[in-house]
Amino acid sequence: MFKKIALITNNDARGMIDTLKSVSSFLSSRDTDVVLDQHCAELMPDSGYEQVDMTGQSINCDLAIAIGGDGTMLRAARLLAEHDIPLLGINRGRLGFLTDIPADNVEAHLAEILDGRYYEGRRFQLSCEVRREEKTILQATAFNDVIIQKWNIAKLIELVTYVNQTLVHAQRADGMIVSTPTGSTAYALSGGGPILHPELNAMVLVPICPHTLSNRPIVIDASDVVEIVVGSPENDHARLSCDGEILLELLAGDSVCIHKKDKEVRLIHPANHSHFNTLREKLNWG
Amino acid sequence: MFKKIALITNNDARGMIDTLKSVSSFLSSRDTDVVLDQHCAELMPDSGYEQVDMTGQSINCDLAIAIGGDGTMLRAARLLAEHDIPLLGINRGRLGFLTDIPADNVEAHLAEILDGRYYEGRRFQLSCEVRREEKTILQATAFNDVIIQKWNIAKLIELVTYVNQTLVHAQRADGMIVSTPTGSTAYALSGGGPILHPELNAMVLVPICPHTLSNRPIVIDASDVVEIVVGSPENDHARLSCDGEILLELLAGDSVCIHKKDKEVRLIHPANHSHFNTLREKLNWG
Amino acid sequence: MFKKIALITNNDARGMIDTLKSVSSFLSSRDTDVVLDQHCAELMPDSGYEQVDMTGQSINCDLAIAIGGDGTMLRAARLLAEHDIPLLGINRGRLGFLTDIPADNVEAHLAEILDGRYYEGRRFQLSCEVRREEKTILQATAFNDVIIQKWNIAKLIELVTYVNQTLVHAQRADGMIVSTPTGSTAYALSGGGPILHPELNAMVLVPICPHTLSNRPIVIDASDVVEIVVGSPENDHARLSCDGEILLELLAGDSVCIHKKDKEVRLIHPANHSHFNTLREKLNWG
Amino acid sequence: MFKKIALITNNDARGMIDTLKSVSSFLSSRDTDVVLDQHCAELMPDSGYEQVDMTGQSINCDLAIAIGGDGTMLRAARLLAEHDIPLLGINRGRLGFLTDIPADNVEAHLAEILDGRYYEGRRFQLSCEVRREEKTILQATAFNDVIIQKWNIAKLIELVTYVNQTLVHAQRADGMIVSTPTGSTAYALSGGGPILHPELNAMVLVPICPHTLSNRPIVIDASDVVEIVVGSPENDHARLSCDGEILLELLAGDSVCIHKKDKEVRLIHPANHSHFNTLREKLNWG
Repeated sequence: MFKKIALITNNDARGMIDTLKSVSSFLSSRDTDVVLDQHCAELMPDSGYEQVDMTGQSINCDLAIAIGGDGTMLRAARLLAEHDIPLLGINRGRLGFLTDIPADNVEAHLAEILDGRYYEGRRFQLSCEVRREEKTILQATAFNDVIIQKWNIAKLIELVTYVNQTLVHAQRADGMIVSTPTGSTAYALSGGGPILHPELNAMVLVPICPHTLSNRPIVIDASDVVEIVVGSPENDHARLSCDGEILLELLAGDSVCIHKKDKEVRLIHPANHSHFNTLREKLNWG
Repeated sequence: MFKKIALITNNDARGMIDTLKSVSSFLSSRDTDVVLDQHCAELMPDSGYEQVDMTGQSINCDLAIAIGGDGTMLRAARLLAEHDIPLLGINRGRLGFLTDIPADNVEAHLAEILDGRYYEGRRFQLSCEVRREEKTILQATAFNDVIIQKWNIAKLIELVTYVNQTLVHAQRADGMIVSTPTGSTAYALSGGGPILHPELNAMVLVPICPHTLSNRPIVIDASDVVEIVVGSPENDHARLSCDGEILLELLAGDSVCIHKKDKEVRLIHPANHSHFNTLREKLNWG
Repeated sequence: MFKKIALITNNDARGMIDTLKSVSSFLSSRDTDVVLDQHCAELMPDSGYEQVDMTGQSINCDLAIAIGGDGTMLRAARLLAEHDIPLLGINRGRLGFLTDIPADNVEAHLAEILDGRYYEGRRFQLSCEVRREEKTILQATAFNDVIIQKWNIAKLIELVTYVNQTLVHAQRADGMIVSTPTGSTAYALSGGGPILHPELNAMVLVPICPHTLSNRPIVIDASDVVEIVVGSPENDHARLSCDGEILLELLAGDSVCIHKKDKEVRLIHPANHSHFNTLREKLNWG
Repeated sequence: MFKKIALITNNDARGMIDTLKSVSSFLSSRDTDVVLDQHCAELMPDSGYEQVDMTGQSINCDLAIAIGGDGTMLRAARLLAEHDIPLLGINRGRLGFLTDIPADNVEAHLAEILDGRYYEGRRFQLSCEVRREEKTILQATAFNDVIIQKWNIAKLIELVTYVNQTLVHAQRADGMIVSTPTGSTAYALSGGGPILHPELNAMVLVPICPHTLSNRPIVIDASDVVEIVVGSPENDHARLSCDGEILLELLAGDSVCIHKKDKEVRLIHPANHSHFNTLREKLNWG
């Protein structure tokens, strides 16, 4: 039972306040406790709802609802990564892969979900650690993808890739995407990667514009550990990003270690949810 | 311990008899019992080794060695599909993805394996059933792939695909490949599919020349059940093949159901085996 | 000035007769002479319009209007290949790449064209000759593409390709497409080929599912001569088709010679025609 | 007749001086006048050969020989863009697409060429102009490609593309490559572009990781004029490079206009030169 429900957004789009108000008042009418993250609290300054710190060590709620687009969901999922709180997405604008409840018909969907008619899907996230000269200089979480990409040069970068400490290849490319199933419909798809079923226990390595034409996407088990080492000194203009946020400029010799996080994301969908429906609609199939 | 070892081939290449003789005499020198399938027995008519029927219900041996190319291994794996017998491949000619012991240095490798220094990898096979008007008209096994492909017309065929009874898409294409990880480096790769790690518990659906450009390969869990229904009456010129052998001409309305077989293939590799090494060599990486 | 106008179709779709009637009566009202091909004459048996033999040596008219889909236009273009008659396409159903005047607003468009406000684009066709044991056994014309494709086997075929008598490559593949710019948005696109601007003086060789992953589409000058030789005896299950019509079963050693035809197709478009508009609409760009 | 021959390099690789000495002394022995660019003169300070300024308005020689790799040739071709001087490439290291005379057997090849047994191929270059607020702020030449690519952000950029002032598409992507036939085997190939025959009078637009999967490479006539406008203000992190050299950071609203240069590059090849041979070798065909 979802008794205490947190609303989350990072979105200032026109109409956001209206959506927030209709969601929160509907939830209140159904006898749940609504709490707001900082951004929602700022958008509804006199609502009377409690504000909670979503970046804190302990978050006390039964359900989090992210309102916005897929980017809002990615951020919410990373915030909740260490907690065991189900997450639901309401899209403002066009259908997202993650936000599959439309804002303009939100009450009917929420009613169903509060009544227990929903589907809970489990997704995993990636943990990413960068080691430089035997020290860990960065730890980050990615729900979509970890990307190492050239920057500042028009030339290719050299990346040496290992899976479970076994050499996969040394390649020259614009970069490399390590993607979860969730991220397989994001940037990895533009890079030529396959679509992974969102609950598949696998990740995919997608080279970006590789110099060797037979360097194709490789799908490995999600429990495998990937290590990517940035190549020679003159080719050190590489950057690391997780879910589209640039986190670090990489130097030659830096090692990026990527593995599945223990805690999974619990995504709440309408009971009749089909990921393939979303694919057909968003990719104009048929 | 491998005490009783069966030799299998379907190969008549020049030099095959020499390889058979050196393998069998080495195995005999190591105190194992060598038995031959029909083809090997014909190639060494006076060898004195027992001949066994590899198509029978019970096959009594501890190890099967297939000598030839990847096609020889595919056939051996299908023959042994219901048994629990480890399988080793010796390649005559160039390195295969499955036959990774070279014929010209076979004794050193066999010695290591008989001494217990080997790696056993588990691969799965696909079961394929065709239903027509509510009757099952074909059952077959595939180690690489099940392929539904147009035949006899220069036009596309229509295929409706379901995963676990949920619609994936209705598409027009030259065909569809449903591939195991083992098959992902075979025809599926030419069709634009990703490389699946051979022990990944997943299969991949690769459309062949799809009319809709966003119809990309889809990777699903190996425990999922795929159903592909052949489309409208005027577009019924489709054929079914498993591992490259044409098995059936499909009619409109035929349903092809594909799922993972229970029994796995136990592949024996040299102890230092790396599938990525094979990929680098065969795909000219770097 | 378009004084004498022939109507052509191969289409029996519901509503075809209505379209024919409205087109022919509008043309008559504009003081042009309407003539009908055999199919149109059968659809309007008592129209009083003259019937002409479009397969004959001399066709006497100033404009041909094909009514149907892109397939109707392909056939009309091949029929008119040796004549110098401009060709206009009216689509019944959805927008085609070649038939860009919609049937439901046909009079306004025809009025403009009869008034001389139109764009005439020049497209070329391919001539295809098959030689077997030093004899020419087939000559054919293609507006979209000449395709050599495997048939009857699940294995690849071997094709050796020459351009201007220089070896390009010997490859194993499902087949090879030789496409005009017009055909580059048809089957060649599904096979991974690029889009060629329709009036570019070039053709493109697109391998179908090639075994060697770096065998990419190759664009050559339209004045180049392509020769494709079908490979070794055990791999002779190949078929030749032009514009989707199967013409011949090829044997090992057969040589298919493809070159640009002298006579061009004169395609009439509305004055504001943009091929990129059609691409954006049909390929769901943006 | 090649009487006065300029040697050009930008290369300091070990052994470069030896190659320079053997080339220049062979040319001298054949009664030609050898002149050196600045870099060659620095590598052979006491050679006695005249030094010429290759960046000057008038360059007086009958043949230029670039020694190094394809990058050396690209630079030499841009330097000579306004002159009408044939260009020959000697590769130090592995076979290049442009430098097809191996340094270790250079005398036999040079002898043939001086004797008049050679093939002269004509290649075109691109002129690239950037306009900002109605002023031209950059003019540059590219032999391989003009690339507009995202920089400094992990998000896609928006590019609006026109051909001859007609809209092609507005797309979100990592960038866009406009490539000559010469560049079609360079970065454009990694980006998924086709191979253009080097003397084809066409260029190709290759989107880099486009968001819309049906945004495919487009081949247009070399006489067409391409204009690419950088999109909305928040997406202005784009850079322009020609032949791999970053030239400019682009702002939103900047317009990049690309067209064929009048003067062509005259490439000298050995008489038996075949571009397809080079492709087969460098792309591991067969």
